[in-house]
Amino acid sequence: MTSTTLLLAQSDIHQVLRAAGRDQVMDRMIERLHTAFVAADVGRAVTPARQGFLTGTDRTGVLEWMPHHDPGQAITIKTVSYAPMNPVKFGLPTILGTIARFDDETGHMVGLCDGVLPTAVRTGAASAVATRLFAHPESKVVGLIGAGAQAVTQLHALSRVLDIETVLVYDTTPKHSASFSQRVGFLGLDIRVVPLEELEARADVICTATSVDVGQGPVLQGHDLREHLHINAIGADLPGKFEVPSHVLKNAFVCPDHFEQALREGECQQVESDDLGPSLPSVCANPRLAKGAQDGLSVFDSTGFALEDHVAFDVFHEFARHYGIGRRVNLESVSSDSHNPYGDAFEELPAGGAVQQLAAQH
Amino acid sequence: MTSTTLLLAQSDIHQVLRAAGRDQVMDRMIERLHTAFVAADVGRAVTPARQGFLTGTDRTGVLEWMPHHDPGQAITIKTVSYAPMNPVKFGLPTILGTIARFDDETGHMVGLCDGVLPTAVRTGAASAVATRLFAHPESKVVGLIGAGAQAVTQLHALSRVLDIETVLVYDTTPKHSASFSQRVGFLGLDIRVVPLEELEARADVICTATSVDVGQGPVLQGHDLREHLHINAIGADLPGKFEVPSHVLKNAFVCPDHFEQALREGECQQVESDDLGPSLPSVCANPRLAKGAQDGLSVFDSTGFALEDHVAFDVFHEFARHYGIGRRVNLESVSSDSHNPYGDAFEELPAGGAVQQLAAQH
Repeated sequence: MTSTTLLLAQSDIHQVLRAAGRDQVMDRMIERLHTAFVAADVGRAVTPARQGFLTGTDRTGVLEWMPHHDPGQAITIKTVSYAPMNPVKFGLPTILGTIARFDDETGHMVGLCDGVLPTAVRTGAASAVATRLFAHPESKVVGLIGAGAQAVTQLHALSRVLDIETVLVYDTTPKHSASFSQRVGFLGLDIRVVPLEELEARADVICTATSVDVGQGPVLQGHDLREHLHINAIGADLPGKFEVPSHVLKNAFVCPDHFEQALREGECQQVESDDLGPSLPSVCANPRLAKGAQDGLSVFDSTGFALEDHVAFDVFHEFARHYGIGRRVNLESVSSDSHNPYGDAFEELPAGGAVQQLAAQH
Repeated sequence: MTSTTLLLAQSDIHQVLRAAGRDQVMDRMIERLHTAFVAADVGRAVTPARQGFLTGTDRTGVLEWMPHHDPGQAITIKTVSYAPMNPVKFGLPTILGTIARFDDETGHMVGLCDGVLPTAVRTGAASAVATRLFAHPESKVVGLIGAGAQAVTQLHALSRVLDIETVLVYDTTPKHSASFSQRVGFLGLDIRVVPLEELEARADVICTATSVDVGQGPVLQGHDLREHLHINAIGADLPGKFEVPSHVLKNAFVCPDHFEQALREGECQQVESDDLGPSLPSVCANPRLAKGAQDGLSVFDSTGFALEDHVAFDVFHEFARHYGIGRRVNLESVSSDSHNPYGDAFEELPAGGAVQQLAAQH
């Protein structure tokens, strides 16, 4: 059994995208997530809600650990941080993170990969899984509220499951909406920057992916919506942070990704437990639970959970091994004598000081 | 600000030991732990109790994550696994683990290091800190119950704070006691394999470091002990696992390293909360809390907690940087445009397919 760890750095993740093609990566992510949701609903897999620390001198950041366990198979732990001052103060991205994978039998760290793009891709893929189940089959107009990084992978994912005619974009920062069509140029879609009211009135599917501050939501107005509208609500990830107004949630089929997290930090914070629909894994396993949802208002409350990171690791790791991408390192201890913790360190010594010292003791 | 991650693999940890000397590493670990305990008792540092999954097809293993937060400074997360079948079935050590360090301000993973030897060294150092506070000043005879890997670093650490004349060793597996004197040859001490009764009657300080099974303890008999005996109880780390009999705990000054963990999985499982002494960090901050303990029976209940791993990372990381040991890798995403998740992947392309594809969209 190998005891090395496969490192997939940022540049390796990019190489996977170039080698496999981003559509192929996204398609596999969507199918694998769907399959994993079905299995999770009936299986023994466990995803505890994430936990973390408030970080930074002003406590506006967070660093979280997100574990997932597929008993008998593998364990994934993503560590992910959100530090809003990073770009301005340190020239670093707001979000940083890595995904570690462990073998369930030996505990060995099989791989470690940069988590940022895999997270964005799996979050998009989860919306695609939900959209395929809940959106009206004739949906052709996608509305994006918030045109940042997540909007790119949300739209990419939706483009794989919908026949999109028009994309309507709204962002409170005009610079973001203006640059959006260039950032998703690879999709070849008709992108239009529009007022929020027009977006809400015309869209068949809406993704909210904003960084609205705690207590400043919602961002969706919800006064004039299409009867069959499906909403993928991506941004809520903190207590007090919402994007969708409560009157919309009240009238919608509301499907959280992970109950405990969604009730604590998702749109479901605003929902009475009686109004909660089944979770996405449950609907994937038993689509009849969402009967009729395609013809009415529906909301997928996406907080992002570690099962998705587990699948994201699998997809990137598989492609990387297929194309021979990444670096194998001997990170973990593999002592030849497990009762002799210092042994290996000094046995490797060339003749000289330490060897004489050892000899003198006999 | 650098965005690289310093990897310290098994071989790098060994190189640190050879470059700095193992006594110097142990001495620094003891002093830094003591200082960190003092600071932790009065400061804002937070160490939640570890959590984990039961692993392996027969659920006899465990994989745990152990986070520690020094607000405004840094976060450490150790992941550590225990898989008893590793040596026989896979040729791997029973314990594997790594320590990850994050900057509190940016969330960046500053370093990642093999965790096995740092854990053994910090566990030894914690016993040295406790022994210095609780053992009788004239202690000259050390007894080791269990002669595995931990016994090596326990004895090494005690040798730095006691003037040891004789070491008495007992292990239920004769092979382990027989090889012990060779494994600690570097200490130049008088090592004697003795029956358990003799060890208990003669020792001034005892370390219990066994892998006794849940429900099979205690390992110490406790019928004939020196009046001033100090015990470092290292092995208990699971609900139902004990090494010290309850009648000994009842008559001793009992000092846990971490209350919540010790009550759940340490010797303190057997102790009424009235009989619990102050924690080791509290005693370090305020030694009068242990007044008189050196003349009577005392037990340090060592479950091992993430503050210790935080310090262990610091010590090895400092030495590594001083001697230029380890490898810097660009593991984490440092996108030039944080709103363009796919951007970097395709901008790096040489002239050809993907560039033409991009050009065609403008």
